Amino acid sequence: MPGIFISFEGPDGAGKTTALQNLVPLLKACTDEELVVSREPGGSPISEKIRKIILDITDDHMDDRTEALLYAAARRQHLIDVILPALNDGKIMLTDRFVDSSVAYQGGGREIGMDEVAKINDFAIDGHLPDLTIYFDVTPEVGLARIRKDHEEAMDRLEQASIDFHKRVHESYLKLVKDNPQRIVSIDASQDPDMVVADALAVIQKRFPDVFNGGN
Amino acid sequence: MPGIFISFEGPDGAGKTTALQNLVPLLKACTDEELVVSREPGGSPISEKIRKIILDITDDHMDDRTEALLYAAARRQHLIDVILPALNDGKIMLTDRFVDSSVAYQGGGREIGMDEVAKINDFAIDGHLPDLTIYFDVTPEVGLARIRKDHEEAMDRLEQASIDFHKRVHESYLKLVKDNPQRIVSIDASQDPDMVVADALAVIQKRFPDVFNGGN
Repeated sequence: MPGIFISFEGPDGAGKTTALQNLVPLLKACTDEELVVSREPGGSPISEKIRKIILDITDDHMDDRTEALLYAAARRQHLIDVILPALNDGKIMLTDRFVDSSVAYQGGGREIGMDEVAKINDFAIDGHLPDLTIYFDVTPEVGLARIRKDHEEAMDRLEQASIDFHKRVHESYLKLVKDNPQRIVSIDASQDPDMVVADALAVIQKRFPDVFNGGN
Repeated sequence: MPGIFISFEGPDGAGKTTALQNLVPLLKACTDEELVVSREPGGSPISEKIRKIILDITDDHMDDRTEALLYAAARRQHLIDVILPALNDGKIMLTDRFVDSSVAYQGGGREIGMDEVAKINDFAIDGHLPDLTIYFDVTPEVGLARIRKDHEEAMDRLEQASIDFHKRVHESYLKLVKDNPQRIVSIDASQDPDMVVADALAVIQKRFPDVFNGGN
């Protein structure tokens, strides 16, 4: 495919969503290509309906495997409706979370098993892995402290889970980084937010020097 | 598990839903055990929400793999909320459709691949296959003619699909019957409806003679 597909991953509180917002104007300034930014499962009406079921706090009896299958379904439709059309048009596609989130959260965090969850996601993405994944590394302690400070009342179902859960998510991400050295680059997200953005920018420029070469 | 799990499968228009309704009082008359009847994904609020997304006729751009993952998600939650509790209580669980429907409809009919769809359903059911599956066999021609006659205006998304689709579904069911001779028993659903019910009753009594032995 002619485009470039970059995903942003990390535990809750890693600051990747804010970093991504601040990164976009910097990336735009150094390339002539069009950028498309999306979060999972944004931009797809069917995926948003699925997301609503997943995040509904009244669904407190949802089975872990049901949740994993719903994430995979939403991911599939987001891929079809948003990601693949952008890549076909030669655009640069940036997504806030993708397949690694499910493997880390459902596979590791909820203890379904990373391989098991990877299998249903292989079905969902059918070979369309990101060209580059930037992993924002923070310890569960730092990540959770940041979340509590920022949105004490708005913590959703996932973020209400225990510290042990978040430790398993973190360990699973570290395993994914180790197992996918070509695709995933880890940056230190415990740094000052400006430094985190600078690191992410440097990783992208290094990986795609011909595309992010200063722009017009 | 102490209960008995029986699923009813077949192409659209095979008449299994009506047959199941007529079969239940006959089964009750010859056993002391409690019967629970369910259709996929009935009886589970989360599964019904998922079903609503799947069957929404305005979702006409739903990708085939998204659909397959949603069916697997609804199936999982139905299993957890309805089927396993009944089996744990020693009840006789009868379900209108289960895992074979996805393998035949999404795997074969929509041409995702029977093995591919079986994989995500293995994740969903985690080993809990029915003890017995009764397959109601009719040709696509007979099945579709029956549907058109009965609900001309109410044909949902699946039933609007082409005759080729229904032929692939039928062939996939025949392959499942061939590959699972211990679990799946095929009956001729093109017969008079009373004969179909009698055949289904005979299959169940033969398989579980100690349970359906005349009752009180």
